[in-house]
Amino acid sequence: MLKIGIVGVGTVGASVIKILQDNKEIITARAGVELRVTKGVVKNLNKKRETDIVLSTNPDDILDDKDIDIVVELMGGVDEAKKIVTKALKNKKNVVTANKALLAYHRYELEALCKGNTLAYEASVAGGIPIIQALKNGLGANHIKSIRGIINGTCNYMLTKMTNEGVAFEKVLKEAQELGYAEADPTFDIGGFDAAHKLLILASIAYGIDVKPEDILIEGIGDISQEDILFAKEFGFVIKHLGIAKTVGNSVSLRVHAAFIDKNEMIAKIDGVMNGISVVGDKVGETMYYGPGAGGNATASAVVADLIDIARGTSNGPVFGFKKSLEQGLKLAKKDDITSRYYIRFEVEDKIGVLEKIASLMAKFNISIETFLQKSKKETATLLFVTHTAKEVDIQNALKAIKSLDFIKSKPVMIRIED
Amino acid sequence: MLKIGIVGVGTVGASVIKILQDNKEIITARAGVELRVTKGVVKNLNKKRETDIVLSTNPDDILDDKDIDIVVELMGGVDEAKKIVTKALKNKKNVVTANKALLAYHRYELEALCKGNTLAYEASVAGGIPIIQALKNGLGANHIKSIRGIINGTCNYMLTKMTNEGVAFEKVLKEAQELGYAEADPTFDIGGFDAAHKLLILASIAYGIDVKPEDILIEGIGDISQEDILFAKEFGFVIKHLGIAKTVGNSVSLRVHAAFIDKNEMIAKIDGVMNGISVVGDKVGETMYYGPGAGGNATASAVVADLIDIARGTSNGPVFGFKKSLEQGLKLAKKDDITSRYYIRFEVEDKIGVLEKIASLMAKFNISIETFLQKSKKETATLLFVTHTAKEVDIQNALKAIKSLDFIKSKPVMIRIED
Repeated sequence: MLKIGIVGVGTVGASVIKILQDNKEIITARAGVELRVTKGVVKNLNKKRETDIVLSTNPDDILDDKDIDIVVELMGGVDEAKKIVTKALKNKKNVVTANKALLAYHRYELEALCKGNTLAYEASVAGGIPIIQALKNGLGANHIKSIRGIINGTCNYMLTKMTNEGVAFEKVLKEAQELGYAEADPTFDIGGFDAAHKLLILASIAYGIDVKPEDILIEGIGDISQEDILFAKEFGFVIKHLGIAKTVGNSVSLRVHAAFIDKNEMIAKIDGVMNGISVVGDKVGETMYYGPGAGGNATASAVVADLIDIARGTSNGPVFGFKKSLEQGLKLAKKDDITSRYYIRFEVEDKIGVLEKIASLMAKFNISIETFLQKSKKETATLLFVTHTAKEVDIQNALKAIKSLDFIKSKPVMIRIED
Repeated sequence: MLKIGIVGVGTVGASVIKILQDNKEIITARAGVELRVTKGVVKNLNKKRETDIVLSTNPDDILDDKDIDIVVELMGGVDEAKKIVTKALKNKKNVVTANKALLAYHRYELEALCKGNTLAYEASVAGGIPIIQALKNGLGANHIKSIRGIINGTCNYMLTKMTNEGVAFEKVLKEAQELGYAEADPTFDIGGFDAAHKLLILASIAYGIDVKPEDILIEGIGDISQEDILFAKEFGFVIKHLGIAKTVGNSVSLRVHAAFIDKNEMIAKIDGVMNGISVVGDKVGETMYYGPGAGGNATASAVVADLIDIARGTSNGPVFGFKKSLEQGLKLAKKDDITSRYYIRFEVEDKIGVLEKIASLMAKFNISIETFLQKSKKETATLLFVTHTAKEVDIQNALKAIKSLDFIKSKPVMIRIED
């Protein structure tokens, strides 16, 4: 029997305990030994829980227990979790974590602490989808040309609702909060930070690249309106919030933002709270992984997969898929060097000379227009542009210049087009 | 360095060699050691090949070579391949195979020969999609409620063409043959046998069940016409050829056939030669895996994934995912016990009393009609039925009885509806 201690018995932790009980026979048959949660750490001992495991408020009750084989860290947060995982690894425990924030900041320090013991984290990205394993093992033959992931269920739920039902952002957000798909403070999800953490974990497996969240472009979905969604529809696109990794020569562009994608692409078809990750390898081509990205049972399913892997003795591969460093690894591309087609929306006063002024500033920054659409109502007009391939730095400079013009009514909206 | 011998250096074998050369640096970094193909076995030594590995026509040159660590079997076929894999395993080689027919018939005998050495077969199902690994590890926490796989690219290509372009079966088949998506003798693909082999491999991982192709229901796509496709469209369905595993109580239904599926399901959206497998677990819910199911590079990508796994020392898990047998495993459900809604098409003489006769025979076999549509042209009529949930045995008996009636012009077509 393998004994497991869970630090942070919340929704996911309770699901782990329940799955190991409900599916005990088949999990034992697959793992070869019984997996049993014997201890849990919680913040509040007085809260009523449906479990008979030994609970305490002190992580050391698990970390210092010689009988505990595997520590499952489900407390979330960065600093405290780091201390606990660090101590667990130093104490030669195997560790399973679902903590994407922890890994986004400290994954390489933690990897360095593994000395034959395991640090597993299938649950940290895209919940129930075994994407970590797919990237780490299944696609190992390939140079990964791109990853495009719908890896935040809140954003995808909201964009889907806005697209299918024509509902405004604020209203959908409220609905999402009522349904439990968005937090009371939704910034972490809809601001793109959650997706960024997950993207960095995937990027480590694909490229062996050590990058922190603050190094990459992170944008959310707060600026997207029905205007943008309708325009996308009209031109055969869907707006999705994506975590993107893309190689360009010897560098890799890592970024999180909403994007126009062709409605015929498989990831364009992933709706609601579901997650999906498209990975293009130089040899295999595109593969795509779809499933529930959150929820107690889905996340716990991934945690238990890691536990089974440890029990089978097959979890000792390299933590992020690289046994040795690449001699010539990829560098992080500069944000300014992104090239893309861009969709831009301006709300302007409807008066003579406006279009000319905007067009001339675009030209000044080497931005060439592919499509233009104007929609007027009363004294204001909405100007919608799609550019030919342009450089991010030029777009940003043009937007800065145009934004300050007196006839601009609100912050211009720019959405990149993922071709 | 790990030395590899390939038995059967054809398209896939050549791709394996090329991938290991092209991506040598990153594969070595991931595997920890260099993977090098040093020997190959071919049928014809005189054929010109772009490789400098040592070739022979005798498999024993690889199997008896003490320097060879891994035998990759890519020759296909059952009997000869079985001898070779058996000898390789007995000689303590690790074996990687892409041979689904071999595994469909002899997987448990071969598993029994593994004594600490590996039998890996990621490439045997759905080419470049790491579905074996996903089922074996990633979803291990779950009872698998269902698997529905588009696992034959030829069938999917043909059905997609027929659906999107309204082209007749025979014409699409000819096109598929010209494009290399279908063999000169296409029976193995379009008759459903290829999909059946793959399904049985997946079923072993999901359920630990030992079943041979002749034990299960296997149907192809040869009877499907534009009439059926148009009817499907009209009612919000798409016709796909599926490998299906589905638990019902203590048994599992395994079958391969065309089916109506709701056009909004993710697997309904998989078009062309692409493959995709939807797996529903009792805890995680639905996950779906999409990608190229065939082709030299895609298949070789999966072979190399297995090689990396072996090099890392993480390939020693249970061959089909079970360390121990299940005490109460699932039994194979009888074909007769399938329950489903059914779509049925009759071509009949357009005369008085025909519908009454058919309807009364349906009623006699407890088949209740949900939807009925009649299309007449000249002296013939097409009768299209959708039934409420019925039993397979009743449907088969009703079809048998109706088929022999004098006004029936051609073999009735029946397609199950996967709800």
